[in-house]
Amino acid sequence: MKKVIVDSNQIENYVHKLGSIGLMNGQLWRPVYTSAYREAKSLVSSWMSDIGLVVKEDAVGNLFGRANPPLKRRFSKKVVMTGSHLDTVRNGGKYDGAAGIICSLSAVSALLKQFGTPLVPVEIVALCEEEGSRYTKASYLGSRAIMEGLLEDDLLCRDEQGISLREAIINEGLDPNKLDSAKRDDIGVFLELHIEQGPILEYANIDLGIVEKITGLILLEIEVVGRADHAGTTPMDLRLDALVGVASFLKELPSLALNISKYARATVGVISVKPGMTNVVPEKVKIFIDLREVDEGRLLKLEQVVKERVLKLDNKGYQIKIDRIYYGEPTSMDEGLIKRAEKIAHGRNISYLRMNSGAGHDAQIFGRLIPALMLFVPCRGGRSHCPEEYSSPQDLALATEVLADLLYELAWSESKK
Amino acid sequence: MKKVIVDSNQIENYVHKLGSIGLMNGQLWRPVYTSAYREAKSLVSSWMSDIGLVVKEDAVGNLFGRANPPLKRRFSKKVVMTGSHLDTVRNGGKYDGAAGIICSLSAVSALLKQFGTPLVPVEIVALCEEEGSRYTKASYLGSRAIMEGLLEDDLLCRDEQGISLREAIINEGLDPNKLDSAKRDDIGVFLELHIEQGPILEYANIDLGIVEKITGLILLEIEVVGRADHAGTTPMDLRLDALVGVASFLKELPSLALNISKYARATVGVISVKPGMTNVVPEKVKIFIDLREVDEGRLLKLEQVVKERVLKLDNKGYQIKIDRIYYGEPTSMDEGLIKRAEKIAHGRNISYLRMNSGAGHDAQIFGRLIPALMLFVPCRGGRSHCPEEYSSPQDLALATEVLADLLYELAWSESKK
Repeated sequence: MKKVIVDSNQIENYVHKLGSIGLMNGQLWRPVYTSAYREAKSLVSSWMSDIGLVVKEDAVGNLFGRANPPLKRRFSKKVVMTGSHLDTVRNGGKYDGAAGIICSLSAVSALLKQFGTPLVPVEIVALCEEEGSRYTKASYLGSRAIMEGLLEDDLLCRDEQGISLREAIINEGLDPNKLDSAKRDDIGVFLELHIEQGPILEYANIDLGIVEKITGLILLEIEVVGRADHAGTTPMDLRLDALVGVASFLKELPSLALNISKYARATVGVISVKPGMTNVVPEKVKIFIDLREVDEGRLLKLEQVVKERVLKLDNKGYQIKIDRIYYGEPTSMDEGLIKRAEKIAHGRNISYLRMNSGAGHDAQIFGRLIPALMLFVPCRGGRSHCPEEYSSPQDLALATEVLADLLYELAWSESKK
Repeated sequence: MKKVIVDSNQIENYVHKLGSIGLMNGQLWRPVYTSAYREAKSLVSSWMSDIGLVVKEDAVGNLFGRANPPLKRRFSKKVVMTGSHLDTVRNGGKYDGAAGIICSLSAVSALLKQFGTPLVPVEIVALCEEEGSRYTKASYLGSRAIMEGLLEDDLLCRDEQGISLREAIINEGLDPNKLDSAKRDDIGVFLELHIEQGPILEYANIDLGIVEKITGLILLEIEVVGRADHAGTTPMDLRLDALVGVASFLKELPSLALNISKYARATVGVISVKPGMTNVVPEKVKIFIDLREVDEGRLLKLEQVVKERVLKLDNKGYQIKIDRIYYGEPTSMDEGLIKRAEKIAHGRNISYLRMNSGAGHDAQIFGRLIPALMLFVPCRGGRSHCPEEYSSPQDLALATEVLADLLYELAWSESKK
């Protein structure tokens, strides 16, 4: 085949344009169903139109740009889908999620220019609320709506302002009773290009990561209840300070994870204290513990040891409540797609590494039901979810070329279908 | 003298009336300069008027009810002041602060009825923002405005909504440029009845506490900065998790305090994490550490060992910022007033205990410059700053009788002046 040619300048240009939406006081945040989010969607929508795609939005707010095959083939083949998520974490970076949408645009644009109409439908997708940065309990909202359908519980969860997801959907002009219509069974394969969000590729000086497994994730919500007392009058040894209780196991979480495996992760990123006054001994502390492992058995073992450690506080008189609010099993990417990507990278002299993903991704929601693949782009210092997040236009272009060649094989090349 | 007779039913009735103002979803909170606060002030103001006091508000929002002596004596003697604060902590109780205002009303009301016009001016005061529950850094706002004058820094501090104290004062209809007019030099003595907020009197089955010393208090604001990283991709041993760092010393605070003395206290009641996402390793943690001791030397020693422990994190790569945002030295109550109170209690067969206060009080602001005394009322289980806070009408009445007799000696009895 004739190699697809990708424009790295355009990728860089798009990254900065999209990355300027959602900035407030120098911090980037594009939570779902906000004005920044709508502005980003409108920009991506215009880019989709510019390259001749038919733009559509589904009932939950995912955005699609579709290249249709000739009429006679339009309904005979399943869709080849590529893309990533449009939302960011709070004070996040320009690449996480955005890179997958932008590089898909670059790849499909080049393919349409060089090879014309595809032989099967190709869609670029900009998915909503992957991060759960507005609705913690509703992570992967967009991809779950497409592949699994949402649950009644999803709509009940609330953001920091107390606005329920149901209310936010209504405010967005969408109908919470029609979310089922977002569910699809016409997708044949899902490809997601994404920054690595870790330091491995950069340290090893490798161009591309080809993902084998995506980590499993368990999110525990833990409430520890002690006793509120006056901070001045209550002797230290007569207190039941919920924060001191929580601190006793917070400190041990890193070693609990390291004891499971080098792939195990345990993180507390959110903590709140009630009543939350400097002169009142904490009565209640709520935390979320994010647990990850690429092996399901080890993930469940990690959850077990963490729970056991937390429940030890029982002996001291604390009341403990532990809720598992999210479980995502580890997901394997499609071996056939992995092999195709390896062959393409090899043919282009692009160095690559088969690796696991410690981060969760929409590709795992797709990958549970249909063949899916992720391509990882090296990122500086392994940093992500922060303003320092950076992948070079050259590295993005290399991964985009592999993505484009793969899309060519799946959607433009008669012989391979 | 003829003993003053106090109405315990009225005290109970007033406690419940005032305690019903500021309730939201079953939780009591009367932060300064809010509608609940204004409603409470208006109620106390009406009670003051009802017993014939002249009501006045000062430039910072303290409320006074004054019983004037005959005209020829009006300006010759300094004011005998009694009262406490009208604000509460969040999810607080009906007695902390309120009891001191209500029992003062009960005592002065009985004195006016039984003995008529006093010989020197007597004022009941309802002080504002003692707790600092809205403006943490502006605790003792009302008493400091009267005795010391406020600082420019006080006006800059902000509540959780970002409203500065200056703005809140303007919104209250007060003039932030006229706060100096609240300062007074005409107060001769300050008496404060207050619930004990600790378990000692109840456990010892003693009717009354007569305070010798009020604890000193140091409030430290500490920021620990680590590094934000992705919670899934960053290996446990390559992190600089600010929350794990803070947890390592939080756990040790109780023993650091216990090593100083049985009177030492160290409490972290407020903690915040940035960026505050479940899937991002904490970059910054801010906490307030509340340190107390009745002995100044030991208080400073406690501060030193806590700071040293926090700064140990330096070695692990964290950046540490420690600000002392409040220092209140331990304050002794007036020995002459203590002896008078003891004599009165003895004469009435009321059991009493000389004791220290582990809580800070407005009386310490007054007590630094003029003779001051605190009377402590037993409270159930030593609980305070919580809805369970309770002192019996009988115990409140006994303390009120001692307060009334003391007021009689100071303001109604010719021989003692």
